[in-house]
Amino acid sequence: MSGLFITFEGGEGAGKSTQVALLEAHLRAGGCDVVRTREPGGTPGAEALRDFLLFGGHDLSLRAEILAHFAARCDHVDRLIRPALARGAVVICDRFADSTMAYQGYGIGQGDPATIGLIDALTAQVGLVPDLTLVLALDRARARQRLDARGGRSDRYEAADEAFHTRVAEGFETIARTHAGRCVRLSADRPAEVIARDVAQRVDARLAGPA
Amino acid sequence: MSGLFITFEGGEGAGKSTQVALLEAHLRAGGCDVVRTREPGGTPGAEALRDFLLFGGHDLSLRAEILAHFAARCDHVDRLIRPALARGAVVICDRFADSTMAYQGYGIGQGDPATIGLIDALTAQVGLVPDLTLVLALDRARARQRLDARGGRSDRYEAADEAFHTRVAEGFETIARTHAGRCVRLSADRPAEVIARDVAQRVDARLAGPA
Repeated sequence: MSGLFITFEGGEGAGKSTQVALLEAHLRAGGCDVVRTREPGGTPGAEALRDFLLFGGHDLSLRAEILAHFAARCDHVDRLIRPALARGAVVICDRFADSTMAYQGYGIGQGDPATIGLIDALTAQVGLVPDLTLVLALDRARARQRLDARGGRSDRYEAADEAFHTRVAEGFETIARTHAGRCVRLSADRPAEVIARDVAQRVDARLAGPA
Repeated sequence: MSGLFITFEGGEGAGKSTQVALLEAHLRAGGCDVVRTREPGGTPGAEALRDFLLFGGHDLSLRAEILAHFAARCDHVDRLIRPALARGAVVICDRFADSTMAYQGYGIGQGDPATIGLIDALTAQVGLVPDLTLVLALDRARARQRLDARGGRSDRYEAADEAFHTRVAEGFETIARTHAGRCVRLSADRPAEVIARDVAQRVDARLAGPA
């Protein structure tokens, strides 16, 4: 038996962490073997790379930054995600390769074809595609309100300018459209419980049988 | 005008650093614009990744380790090597992609085709091939003697077992054979000045005109 690989994507403040937690609770209540994880990170080596990339203050070229994100991703896939799927677990991951495409490809790289091509090539090398990707879409002004209310440590992306966040949001829209087979776009400007019911319904349908 | 990209390869103790320094002195004496650098490292970001990889004590999956080496390499190529070549400099680099092939591909990966394929694919993504690669070949027993005499901080490779170092040495031989167009294999079991004359002759010939 092989499990189910579910990813959540979207900009900061869209409520991914909340939805990941609610979906985990829903599946556990139903008796599922669930592994909840996040990117960048998820394994000791990948978490160390996360700290290096997000909080280390190192200035890497864009290509180097993309490769380092995929290094963390490979450790995560090889050490945690693939073994969990192999034993039949449902893996719920807060961000995956689509985030590299949105942040590095569309956000920093501004959609430059060579950068998009590099990310596509590396994604193919990883060799693991999510079964279902839930893209939480939220207007940037609403996301900003939520982030201001949340406070706490802000990483390098949260500190970036608004034009960057607009490109990232448009990047996620493009990804959801061009990978419509696995991506479901959900409006995140609704109460968390309402979104969670929407998510649970989609996941339950996938668990009940082939797409 | 575009410069010349020269790499030195070989196992530990083969005398690469000495030859790099002697070649640098020879070229500077001739009035060349020379950039001397090394891998992993060469730029602030790549040096930080070098520390992470060689001395951080992080245990990454082999694929992740390979990608992290190429992340460092891309920063080095994008920020230091390409700009130097573009202004017409001779860049002398102590280790480059062949070392990832020898250490990760043949040493740790034991020649596994998927691993070799990943390294080949990433090498193609980097998009920069050395004009001349000097492979310093030394019997492992002699290399061991030199390393013991040298002392100092030993990294994770120097601490590995002999079977590993034998696979790495055979890996370099395979690389020198299969890339005979750019690789010159030199016996490193000779006095440094003799090897240096050999190296200088090859480099001077490349600088004098097309291969």
